[in-house]
Amino acid sequence: MTDARVNGGRLWASLMELAQIGATPKGGVKRLALTDLDRQGRDLVVGWGKQAGMSVTVDQIGNVFMRREGRNPSLAPVMTGSHIDTQPTGGKFDGNYGVLAGLEVVRTLNDLNIQTEAPIEVAFWTNEEGSRFVPVMMGSGVFCGAFSLETAYAAKDTEGLTVKDELARIGYLGEQVPGQHPIGAYFETHIEQGPVLEDADKVIGVVPAVMGLSWYDCVVTGMEAHAGPTPMGLRRDALQVSTKIMQEVVALANRYPPYGRGTVGMVQVFPNSRNVIPGEVKFSIDLRNVNDELLNTMHEEMLAYIDGVRKDSGLAISIERVSYYPPCPFHPDCVGAVRKATEALGYSTMDVVSGAGHDAIYAARPFPPTTDFAGNRASPAPQYRHHRPS
Amino acid sequence: MTDARVNGGRLWASLMELAQIGATPKGGVKRLALTDLDRQGRDLVVGWGKQAGMSVTVDQIGNVFMRREGRNPSLAPVMTGSHIDTQPTGGKFDGNYGVLAGLEVVRTLNDLNIQTEAPIEVAFWTNEEGSRFVPVMMGSGVFCGAFSLETAYAAKDTEGLTVKDELARIGYLGEQVPGQHPIGAYFETHIEQGPVLEDADKVIGVVPAVMGLSWYDCVVTGMEAHAGPTPMGLRRDALQVSTKIMQEVVALANRYPPYGRGTVGMVQVFPNSRNVIPGEVKFSIDLRNVNDELLNTMHEEMLAYIDGVRKDSGLAISIERVSYYPPCPFHPDCVGAVRKATEALGYSTMDVVSGAGHDAIYAARPFPPTTDFAGNRASPAPQYRHHRPS
Repeated sequence: MTDARVNGGRLWASLMELAQIGATPKGGVKRLALTDLDRQGRDLVVGWGKQAGMSVTVDQIGNVFMRREGRNPSLAPVMTGSHIDTQPTGGKFDGNYGVLAGLEVVRTLNDLNIQTEAPIEVAFWTNEEGSRFVPVMMGSGVFCGAFSLETAYAAKDTEGLTVKDELARIGYLGEQVPGQHPIGAYFETHIEQGPVLEDADKVIGVVPAVMGLSWYDCVVTGMEAHAGPTPMGLRRDALQVSTKIMQEVVALANRYPPYGRGTVGMVQVFPNSRNVIPGEVKFSIDLRNVNDELLNTMHEEMLAYIDGVRKDSGLAISIERVSYYPPCPFHPDCVGAVRKATEALGYSTMDVVSGAGHDAIYAARPFPPTTDFAGNRASPAPQYRHHRPS
Repeated sequence: MTDARVNGGRLWASLMELAQIGATPKGGVKRLALTDLDRQGRDLVVGWGKQAGMSVTVDQIGNVFMRREGRNPSLAPVMTGSHIDTQPTGGKFDGNYGVLAGLEVVRTLNDLNIQTEAPIEVAFWTNEEGSRFVPVMMGSGVFCGAFSLETAYAAKDTEGLTVKDELARIGYLGEQVPGQHPIGAYFETHIEQGPVLEDADKVIGVVPAVMGLSWYDCVVTGMEAHAGPTPMGLRRDALQVSTKIMQEVVALANRYPPYGRGTVGMVQVFPNSRNVIPGEVKFSIDLRNVNDELLNTMHEEMLAYIDGVRKDSGLAISIERVSYYPPCPFHPDCVGAVRKATEALGYSTMDVVSGAGHDAIYAARPFPPTTDFAGNRASPAPQYRHHRPS
């Protein structure tokens, strides 16, 4: 078995063929969830699955499971997968690689006439990206009960089209009740979205956990005024107060190495005119950590800092937590299997904590591990909340 | 003569009538330069001028001079005025007050049968605001030779219409060569655009000078990256570097009281997404001072600070000066006349340095004073440059 190797050229060719559906001029892909292009992509991958001898099940939120039987039909399948929808300015590999890598494994098992003990399934989940419809990670989220099928069905795009209607239109409104599809273990391969592996010159990252994150909207309200006529001492400059908080977001994350993250990614200044002192600034704050207690400490320290700025400046500052995902440690047996296989195949490797959201977060929910990545006891039933105010 | 008082009710009524042309729902005015509404406003004011017995001259850039003769025809006129075009979200008084206050003076002189020694003229200058066509203060700028008639004529709005065509269309392409209209002295009344008078509980501000200003565009280029997967130490966060500079702009102005000003009014973050580390940030810097040497010192300190940030961060930072106006001190005789009259009439008063640009800056050019506001020698021929690179 350790001599079995996938056909890299075949995998690459499939990736390139799929990437032609929605190809953009500079080599990217735009294939938004539940569009005609998504249907074409789904049809292509399902066709490949059937050519590889797999049976196909579609559930009510459009998640697709392609199955290769094993020796023991009483075992739940070992599943691998990801998503094939993309961002408006997406690339060829995000999600798609995880699906087609699974397909390539099946093709290779077929080539070598290898029968596995448990069934193998290759899945792709509906609307992971969330660009056209929110919430993100919709298919896997409904699957694990993070939110209801009705919530997902009712989601509308900017033109008012609903998920349910669009699923039906493209022919992927299946019959299986989401979550009633058994999973024995779930693995998801993914192109790295950060610089860590390249920086460390490693080929494969083993992912023991996904970071938790807290997202906030912060609004600082001062007084809009003309830049020239308003003396410094009479100003209520919303941007100056905001930049203090923006500095602290980064300083805070730097106090919690190695897994603390602090980012201000989005800023809106009003009225945003060269010679007007900003009267209002809205900005986002993104805090992450792999340890939920540390994430909470970061949360508390940030709120305390903002309280101080509010008192010092006299300006109104509102801070609202708009999203919270706890850290998601993966099952040590699954992580260990990946690490062992990687080493057995001779690839350079390192552990990498994932900072981004993936379907695996939801797919892992049926398998809560007993300790988190840092060895602390994990919450027995992590709560996934999409709009939890602070 | 000191018993002569204008008719405040009549002035108010004229202001309210003019404000109906382009009135906006919340009590503001939108009457952009050289639009049909501007024509209506011009026609109304010119009609009032003629009713008051004034003769009207229009020059080639559309500046309008309404003249009441004096006893001595060899004297150049004492002129007062401002502009009647507005910002898209303008108010009733900016500019309009300066023109109609002049008109009210003439009406009052008529009522009281007072003949002045020199002629009196009430002027309004074309396109002071610069909202539709740049450069701003266009009419007075062409008048004093800050830029050429051809430059102004060629300016286009967002729909490609030129100043010259629009002047002709609304009937205000006059024949007099700009600048060939003599001015003996120029006064401009203006609603205060800052909080100083209200803060000090004074009615009238006497303006000995307009601050000089330097405007800059700053661009910090880092590396766009995913917020979760990118460790703090591997980031090149353009926003974090930018906020340091934004903080320094204010700190710098605070080091040069009372007339130092430092403002960041406009910020654009790319890609401006909640979970993406900003790869590029563009922002404006506005530095002002009433003393040109101090303004230059502020300029040098800011560049030195940015050099340090560039070295420390390793990020690319470009800084370009896009506009520079030297401080504009007004002639002490004119300033003294305003101060004397204000006190004689019993109004509470204080000196206020103007931080904003006004037509008076250009109208004052034929009268260079010999010292600036702070008593330093003024440049004999101030250079007005609109796009002077740093």
